[in-house]
Amino acid sequence: MKYVPFSAVKIQGFWKHRSEINTSSTIPTIYKRFSETGRFEAMKCVYTEGMEKPHIFWDSDVAKWIEACAYSLEQTPDGQLEKQVDEIIGYMESGQLDDGYFNSYYIACEPENRFTVRNNHELYCAGHLTEAAVAYYRATGKDKLLDLVKRYLDLIEKAFAEDDSAAFSTPGHEEIELALIKMYELTGEEKYTNLCAHFINTRGTSQKDLDNFVYSGDHSYDQTHLPVRQQKTAEGHSVRALYLYSGMADLARLTGDKELTDACKSLFDNICSKRMYVTGGVGSSSHGETFTQDYDLPNDMAYSETCASIALVLFCRRMLMLETDSKYADAAERAMYNCVLGGVSLDGRSFFYVNPLEINLSRHEKNEKWHDIKENLLTQRAEVFSCSCCPPNLARVIPSFAGDAYSYDDKTIYVHHFISGEAEWEGIKIKQDTRYPNFGDVRITVSGAAGRKIAVRIPGWCTFATLNGGRLPHEPVRGYIYLDITQNEQVFDFYFEMKPRFVAANPLVDGDNGKVCVARGPLVYCAESVLNAGVSLNTLSVDTGAVFGSEPDEESGAMRLSVKVYEDKSRTELYYDYDPDGRTERELTMLPYFAYANHGESDMIVWLRTAAK
Amino acid sequence: MKYVPFSAVKIQGFWKHRSEINTSSTIPTIYKRFSETGRFEAMKCVYTEGMEKPHIFWDSDVAKWIEACAYSLEQTPDGQLEKQVDEIIGYMESGQLDDGYFNSYYIACEPENRFTVRNNHELYCAGHLTEAAVAYYRATGKDKLLDLVKRYLDLIEKAFAEDDSAAFSTPGHEEIELALIKMYELTGEEKYTNLCAHFINTRGTSQKDLDNFVYSGDHSYDQTHLPVRQQKTAEGHSVRALYLYSGMADLARLTGDKELTDACKSLFDNICSKRMYVTGGVGSSSHGETFTQDYDLPNDMAYSETCASIALVLFCRRMLMLETDSKYADAAERAMYNCVLGGVSLDGRSFFYVNPLEINLSRHEKNEKWHDIKENLLTQRAEVFSCSCCPPNLARVIPSFAGDAYSYDDKTIYVHHFISGEAEWEGIKIKQDTRYPNFGDVRITVSGAAGRKIAVRIPGWCTFATLNGGRLPHEPVRGYIYLDITQNEQVFDFYFEMKPRFVAANPLVDGDNGKVCVARGPLVYCAESVLNAGVSLNTLSVDTGAVFGSEPDEESGAMRLSVKVYEDKSRTELYYDYDPDGRTERELTMLPYFAYANHGESDMIVWLRTAAK
Repeated sequence: MKYVPFSAVKIQGFWKHRSEINTSSTIPTIYKRFSETGRFEAMKCVYTEGMEKPHIFWDSDVAKWIEACAYSLEQTPDGQLEKQVDEIIGYMESGQLDDGYFNSYYIACEPENRFTVRNNHELYCAGHLTEAAVAYYRATGKDKLLDLVKRYLDLIEKAFAEDDSAAFSTPGHEEIELALIKMYELTGEEKYTNLCAHFINTRGTSQKDLDNFVYSGDHSYDQTHLPVRQQKTAEGHSVRALYLYSGMADLARLTGDKELTDACKSLFDNICSKRMYVTGGVGSSSHGETFTQDYDLPNDMAYSETCASIALVLFCRRMLMLETDSKYADAAERAMYNCVLGGVSLDGRSFFYVNPLEINLSRHEKNEKWHDIKENLLTQRAEVFSCSCCPPNLARVIPSFAGDAYSYDDKTIYVHHFISGEAEWEGIKIKQDTRYPNFGDVRITVSGAAGRKIAVRIPGWCTFATLNGGRLPHEPVRGYIYLDITQNEQVFDFYFEMKPRFVAANPLVDGDNGKVCVARGPLVYCAESVLNAGVSLNTLSVDTGAVFGSEPDEESGAMRLSVKVYEDKSRTELYYDYDPDGRTERELTMLPYFAYANHGESDMIVWLRTAAK
Repeated sequence: MKYVPFSAVKIQGFWKHRSEINTSSTIPTIYKRFSETGRFEAMKCVYTEGMEKPHIFWDSDVAKWIEACAYSLEQTPDGQLEKQVDEIIGYMESGQLDDGYFNSYYIACEPENRFTVRNNHELYCAGHLTEAAVAYYRATGKDKLLDLVKRYLDLIEKAFAEDDSAAFSTPGHEEIELALIKMYELTGEEKYTNLCAHFINTRGTSQKDLDNFVYSGDHSYDQTHLPVRQQKTAEGHSVRALYLYSGMADLARLTGDKELTDACKSLFDNICSKRMYVTGGVGSSSHGETFTQDYDLPNDMAYSETCASIALVLFCRRMLMLETDSKYADAAERAMYNCVLGGVSLDGRSFFYVNPLEINLSRHEKNEKWHDIKENLLTQRAEVFSCSCCPPNLARVIPSFAGDAYSYDDKTIYVHHFISGEAEWEGIKIKQDTRYPNFGDVRITVSGAAGRKIAVRIPGWCTFATLNGGRLPHEPVRGYIYLDITQNEQVFDFYFEMKPRFVAANPLVDGDNGKVCVARGPLVYCAESVLNAGVSLNTLSVDTGAVFGSEPDEESGAMRLSVKVYEDKSRTELYYDYDPDGRTERELTMLPYFAYANHGESDMIVWLRTAAK
C-alpha cells in the first residue's frame, strides 16, 4: 500500500483555505522572523563577534521552513519564494565542509566538537535538512540541497555506523530515522534504510549513549531506557518519542519486522487510549516536555506542544501503512483539527507552542507566585518565540496533510480523510465533494478504477452513517467500509450524521471527572469568557439534555455552537448549605478549540461540569 | 468582658478524652523526641563540636512544650512531669546571660550576632518563652522561668524601644506581641503593653526592617508591607500574620483603639469569608506558607499548616472580646474540630504539619516528577519532623481550648463553646451536659448568677434550634440568644438539630465548583479509599437527595456516616459519548476529617462531586 502523493492531490474547501493562509501569511511571517534573527545568514556557517550566536537547532528551523515552501510551491508556484529558498540553499552550500559535514552551529562555533554531544540536536538537524532536501527536489527538481544532504549523510554513516568514531551512537533528539526512509524512498538506495535501522536498533543498547547524556537522571527522556522493541509505553520527551516511533513504523513496514511492528502498535495504543488529550494533544508535562503516566491529563497545566501533535499525525500516517485500521486516521484527525490547527492563529501569523485545555487568567498569575507552578503557558499566541520549532512545523504540516487522505494498492483505493478536492494518479481519479469538517455529506466520485474496491473510513466520532441514502452494506471492518467499484465513473454518497455531542473522558482522568466536552464531527469545542460576557467559566455547568444551537462562523470557517448552561448563583458566603436551586440559566457560546484565543485575552475552558440533579 | 480562666473549667466528654490522650501520649512523645534531638540540652546554651547544632527556633519548641505541660498539670497534677519541666528551666537559668539575654542558639553559636537578623525567630522564641513562663507560673506558682523572662523582656525593651540599638525594629516572626499582653495581664505592669504597642505600631514603618529582611521580594510575607492599621487583607506567612493579628486584637481591646479594631475586623472578615478552607485551614500555599488570593483554596495542594489554624483559634478568641459576634466562635470551632484536631493522630503520637483536603497517592508521586509541584504533603502523620512547631502547639491548644468556652462581665455570662463539664468562679457555677460535637442536646445549668443574663451562642451551622423544647425566645442577636437568669439554679435545655448536611462553597472557589462536602454539626467529613474497598474517589459523585446512615465510631469518639454515591462505570475507552446511565450505586463510608489517616496509606477526599442529572 502506498499513499497517493501530496503532489497528485488538489484541495478545495476548508483545507484549501487554511493552506492559502499558510502560504500567504505563515510562510512569509516565518521568513521575516528568521531573517531578523539571523537564522538564514547563519546557514553560511560563519560566525563573527557581534552577530547573534547561532543556536544548535537553527538548521532544523530553516529546513522545516524550506520543506513548507516546497509544499506550497507544489500547490502554488511562486518564483519569488523559490528564489528566496535557492538563496538560502546557496548559503548552505557555501558553508558545507569538504568532508560533507554540515551544521551551522558547530562549523561556526565549535568545529572541533562535532559529533560529541548527544543532546545537541546535530542529527535532528540533519534529519530535517534531509526532509527539506527531498521535498524541495520533489517540488522543483532542483538537487543542490539534495546533494549537500547526500554528502552529509555519507559522513554521518561513516561516523556512526562504519567507524563508530562519534562520541555517541544514536541521536539525542530523534528525527533522522524517518528522514532516512524518505531518502530511501526517493533514491532507492538501501544504505539509507540500513543507517535508519542502525540508529533504531542501537537505541537503548549503547553505553556510549547512556554516558553521554542523561536528562534529570532518567534515560526514558530520550527513549534510551530500553531497546526499542521492548518499549511498550510512550515515555519521555513527546516530540522525540513520536519521531522515533514514526521511524520505527517506517522501518517495520519496509522490513516486515514483527517485533518492531508490535512495539509500534503497543506504543500507539498506549498513547491513544491513555495519554492523549481530547484535542489530540500529547506530552502533558512541561517537565522535560514529556509523557507522564496513564490518564494524567491536567487541563490547565497541559503542556501538549504543537510539535508533539504534529509528530503524532506523522506516526499515525505510518501506522496506517502497517495496519488498515481507522483508529490511526481517527487519532490523526483528532490531532489535526484540534491541537495542530489551534497552534496557529486564524490569520496565520502567530503561534502557540503549548496548548492548554483551560485558561484561567487569575489563576495564571497566582500559579507563578504562590503555587510552585512554572509558567509555560501563553494565553495568546505569540508571533515569536526563541525556540521556533512549532511555527515552521505547522507551515509544513498544514499544506501536506492532503497527502494523508488517500492510499492504494493493486486491489483497493483507501479514503482516510475527508478533504474536498481531487486526486489523480496512475490513470485513476478520485474526487471528494464535501463540506467536512462542518457537515457530514461526502460525495466520492471514482474514475478509472473499475474492478478494484474502494475502502472508506467511517470516522470514529460517527454513530450514524448512510451510503447513497441507505444503510451501510456491512459493518465497518476495522473502521472501513469496503465497496466494489464496478463502473468507470462511480459515485458513492456518504453521509456521516454530524450533530453536536457531549463527550466524556475515562473516569480515571481526574481532571475530567464529572465533566463533558462538546464536539461536533471531528471538532472539539471550547468556551471563551470574552465571547460570553466575561462569565466566570468555572461557575458554569451544562445541561446535557439540552438542544444545541449552531451558526456558521466565517472567521474560523467552522460552526459556532450554543448550549444551555447553569451559572452558579453569586454569593457572599464562603460556605453555605447546598442549594441546587441557586443557579440561573444562560446560553453559552462555544467555538472550535482551534479557533480560540483569536479574540483577545480570555479565560477558556474545554471540559464543562455536568449540571447536578 | 473576661474569659473564665481555663483553670476554673473542668471538662468531660469529647474534650476530656482528647486532653487525656494529649497528657498520656502527646506530651511524652514530644518529650522523648526533643530529648533525642538535644533540644532540652540545648537550653544550657553551650554548644560543643559533635553536638547537633541548635536551631534558631528550638527555644520556641521547648517553650510550647512547657506551656502544654502547664495546662496538663492544672488538670492532672504529675510530680514526675513537673520535675522534668523544672530541670529544663534549670538549664535555661544556667544559660541566661547576666544582662538578661536568653536565646540558646545565639548564646551558643553566634553570641556576637544577637538582635541583628530579623528573620531569625529571636523575638518569636522570646514570645513563646514568655507564654510558657506565664502558664507555668499560673499552674504551679513557680517563678524561676518567669523571672528569667522578665529579665529578658527588660533587655528586649532596652534594645528595641529605649536604645533602638537592635539592627531591626520589629519581629520577623510575630508572636511576642500577644505574649507581652499575657505578661501584662499577669503582672499589671504597663511596660509590657507599651512594648507590645511599640512593636505593633512600628511594623510597616521601619526602614531598618525593610532593609534587614525581605522574603522573595515581598514585604507582605512578614506583614511589613503596610502599617498595621492599613492592613485590610490577610497577607503573607499565615502563622506570622495570625499571631500579629492576635496581638493587634489584644492591644485594641486594652487601648480602645478604633482604627486598630477596624483593621482586625477587616482582617478577620477577609480570612473567614474568602481565604479559609471548610476545615478552618488557612494559608493555602506552600510558597512561603502564605495566604494567597481571595477564593484560592486548592484542595490537593492545600498547605493549611496546623499552626496556622491554631493561630486562627487564638485570633478568634481575642476578636470575641472586641465584639460579641458568634462568627468568631464559629470560625474557632471550625478550625478546632477539623484542621487542628486533624493535626494529631487519634493515638496522640504523630502529627501533620500540612493538612490537605484531598490526597491522591498516584498523583502525589507524579506531581513531584512531572508537574513542577514541590511536595510538602505527607500522606500519613509523622512522629517527627525537623520543624517541630506544630506538635507542641497542638499539645498546648487541645487542653486549653476549654478556656475559650465561657466569658463574663457584670451583667452577662457567655457560652461560646459547647464542652461537657463545669466551671466555677467568683461564686458562679455553670455546668454543661452535652454529647457535643456528636449530638445537639446541650443542658446548661447555672447557679449563683440570678439577676444576670446568660448569652448562648447558636452555632453557625445550625438551622433549627429549640430551648426547653420550644421556640427560641428571640432571633439570635449576632448569633447569641440572651436569657434572663432568674433563679439561683436554673436549667436551660438547648437543642441544636444536628443532621448530616451537604455544604457548598462560594462559586468563586474553583476547586470546589460542582462539589459538596458533608458536615454534621461542627464536623466536616471526608472519605478514605482505604475504608471504601479501595474505590477511586475521583470517580464518585454524590446523590444530594439521599438519606445518610450514621453509626458511632469508638475510635474517633465521633460518628461515621454513609451516603449513597454513584461510581462512574469503568471503561477501556479514553473518550466516549457521554452516557449518564453508565454508573453504579454504592454506599460511601465517611469519617470526620480530623480522624482521617489513621487507617494506613489511602486516598482521601473532602469535596465530592454532585451527581449529574
